[in-house]
Amino acid sequence: MIVQELRVTPVAFADPPLLNADGVHQPHVLRAVVELVVADGRGGEVTGLGECAGHAWQLDWLELVGSRLPGTSVYETGELASRVRELLSGHADGVDYGPDAPWRRWSDRTDPPESRGPAPVPAPAFDIRRVYAALEVACLDAQGQLAGVPVVDLLGGRVRDAVPYSGYLFYKWAGHPGADGESGADGDPGADEWGAALTPDGVVAQAVRMVDRYGFRSLKLKGGVFPPEEEIAALRALRAEFPRHPLRLDPNAAWSRQTALSVVGELADLLEYLEDPVAGVEDMAEVAARTTLPLATNMCVTSLEDVGPAVARGAVRIVLGDHHIWGGLRATVALGNVCRAVGWGLSAHSNSHLGISLAAMTHAAAATASLDHACDTHYPWNAAEDVVVPGALSFVDGSVPVPQGTGLGVRLDRAALDRLHARYLRLGREHRDDTAYLRRVRPGFDPTMPRW
Amino acid sequence: MIVQELRVTPVAFADPPLLNADGVHQPHVLRAVVELVVADGRGGEVTGLGECAGHAWQLDWLELVGSRLPGTSVYETGELASRVRELLSGHADGVDYGPDAPWRRWSDRTDPPESRGPAPVPAPAFDIRRVYAALEVACLDAQGQLAGVPVVDLLGGRVRDAVPYSGYLFYKWAGHPGADGESGADGDPGADEWGAALTPDGVVAQAVRMVDRYGFRSLKLKGGVFPPEEEIAALRALRAEFPRHPLRLDPNAAWSRQTALSVVGELADLLEYLEDPVAGVEDMAEVAARTTLPLATNMCVTSLEDVGPAVARGAVRIVLGDHHIWGGLRATVALGNVCRAVGWGLSAHSNSHLGISLAAMTHAAAATASLDHACDTHYPWNAAEDVVVPGALSFVDGSVPVPQGTGLGVRLDRAALDRLHARYLRLGREHRDDTAYLRRVRPGFDPTMPRW
Repeated sequence: MIVQELRVTPVAFADPPLLNADGVHQPHVLRAVVELVVADGRGGEVTGLGECAGHAWQLDWLELVGSRLPGTSVYETGELASRVRELLSGHADGVDYGPDAPWRRWSDRTDPPESRGPAPVPAPAFDIRRVYAALEVACLDAQGQLAGVPVVDLLGGRVRDAVPYSGYLFYKWAGHPGADGESGADGDPGADEWGAALTPDGVVAQAVRMVDRYGFRSLKLKGGVFPPEEEIAALRALRAEFPRHPLRLDPNAAWSRQTALSVVGELADLLEYLEDPVAGVEDMAEVAARTTLPLATNMCVTSLEDVGPAVARGAVRIVLGDHHIWGGLRATVALGNVCRAVGWGLSAHSNSHLGISLAAMTHAAAATASLDHACDTHYPWNAAEDVVVPGALSFVDGSVPVPQGTGLGVRLDRAALDRLHARYLRLGREHRDDTAYLRRVRPGFDPTMPRW
Repeated sequence: MIVQELRVTPVAFADPPLLNADGVHQPHVLRAVVELVVADGRGGEVTGLGECAGHAWQLDWLELVGSRLPGTSVYETGELASRVRELLSGHADGVDYGPDAPWRRWSDRTDPPESRGPAPVPAPAFDIRRVYAALEVACLDAQGQLAGVPVVDLLGGRVRDAVPYSGYLFYKWAGHPGADGESGADGDPGADEWGAALTPDGVVAQAVRMVDRYGFRSLKLKGGVFPPEEEIAALRALRAEFPRHPLRLDPNAAWSRQTALSVVGELADLLEYLEDPVAGVEDMAEVAARTTLPLATNMCVTSLEDVGPAVARGAVRIVLGDHHIWGGLRATVALGNVCRAVGWGLSAHSNSHLGISLAAMTHAAAATASLDHACDTHYPWNAAEDVVVPGALSFVDGSVPVPQGTGLGVRLDRAALDRLHARYLRLGREHRDDTAYLRRVRPGFDPTMPRW
């Protein structure tokens, strides 16, 4: 049960040009796979998997922590959390934080002219939770393999056998514009099978394809791309095509309070919830006070410390959990208890991700009794280039059955990992920048919020 | 990892005549030990231990659930929780709830004239959580043994190696009055070594003995026994003797709102917190609004459903967790997250208990980062008649080190269990009744609340 090694492997996988309030998705998502190699106490070893964002700072922080993990117990995740905090505080005893320190750095290699330099230490609390989350998932995967049980059983046991997900709709271009160094690289889907979605009809066509293929019973539209009235028209078109699907809209706080107040009446009977129409607890509370429509958030409540003020102001009625953000699977299950305690509903947030995270999200959601909304997932947009062996993950009537087998129930496809890592190295990009990418096409694009 | 059998063994262990708002502790505590026998998948078996209140209804409910446990996985505690709820709802398919059903009943045997009849089905939600809690502890003990790790590591890992407890002071008589069928039975401590504590001096003498022996660094006085001014005098005497020990008082809601408001000013600089001076969220909030002294509770917040109203009214600043009441160790650790989320402090409640529960309480507290007050425990009053093999549990400077070894880290002393079970059978009592016991000495005793 002793950790032998942490391997951190950044990868780049293909992503369509999905539009959002910040800009547009670049041709490849940067993501990191972590492998925690653990002695099984019987002369063999197991490997626990985790997955997280792949920007260079995250990689640096993981490498720093990884340099200090061998010799610890994979069960002592409380001690691990303390260690991560201490190491990323910049003040851990005996740790060389200088440029020649013997832990690998992925940052500041090849990203001019927008280089951001090496990972800052001390790291922000938000990032410390993200680093720990990837490692905790890997620990739980390893623990499950060692004990011969699925991760859901380490989280309190399953309350459901399959986890409902929503169909995550995006405004998108037909293909990447070829206006950057990545378009045309291997993996660039070019003009992908999904086609453009820039109008209500385009959004409905995307939804039909997604529901036909995956069986989703809830639909979410990523908004904040067009003026509110256009996005509302898209929702009305979705309602006409899908009379019984719960609908949700997420403008990512692109609206002013005034704009939100002026359109929320139109949305009240259309949506199951409106996600982050405006930024911050104060403005969310002002909007919430003037509508019966439940407001949801993954922006103004992202840690336990945010709960109290949001409750006091009545800012939201639903929170979107995400183990990457909340600090691991146990913290996400605990969020379910917090929601019950304060009377909030619970849904789940997603960023672009691979099968390791889909498995992890599914195990956590399967152990969370208070989850009462379908979870978001980007997976349909990215499943074609996964790093896990196919077959463990599937959508059945819009739900993902808890993977069979021990631990997370997914195994690494090393050839796929190597291929996507080689691409990461070839691309040479270190960070995600949806705004810069959109500006290559639309130089005047101004991401200042609120936009409307 | 498949459950073979659940054994439920009621025991009776000696208890001094400790006074409280309801009356006085009877000469013996009724408690139940549960043993969950689990196949280890390698031809052997492990036995997980749990402990809970021993009144006859609790035993009946455990036996009912136990009759349906064999064949289930010890890891599927989510499924177990559903099963307990379903069985105790009285509507589980194929279950005979009639008087001749083939599950053992401990109730309604020998308790005339105060017989309460068989356990009610459906059971109240409060009791369903208590039944599940005992079983979940046994499951986690077995899981830890199977995986070769301590229970704390199944709860997220330790954030502390030893858990601080408070010295739990009681008004008490020098010995049991011999006014019932149990005094003089084996195990009756008679005039115990602690002597009487009915005055400030008596309370201080008890505290000195307890601090000298166990090293406690916080002190709690169980109040609600004498008029507030007498209990405040005892606290002043404690403060004089222990200038730096945090002090707490628990009148168990024996005060009226008016009384609480009239004395809370005197307590503001004397106590770290005042526990349940009055009953219910409304009255607690009224008192809380008029003092800087933090109010704590284990009475008006005992489930997640109670949190929201208490937050909304500002009724308390500290909650006392207890895995027996909150529905298991995982739920107790989750309560720590809830407290962080709503800005409450966290302490721990105790009833009379044995070493199995002390170990369980210690593992949960060791995994709970937000625990910021020493935990209560009755253990010093009852440790002389434990059912666990001595040596695993100790107080070091007022703290209990997390037991070494796998699972809970305590093993059953079967000879002790048999002895205390035989005593339980001999006594023939089925329920706890502090009020009736006090009335044998003081026939006019009126437990109506509020008393002052």
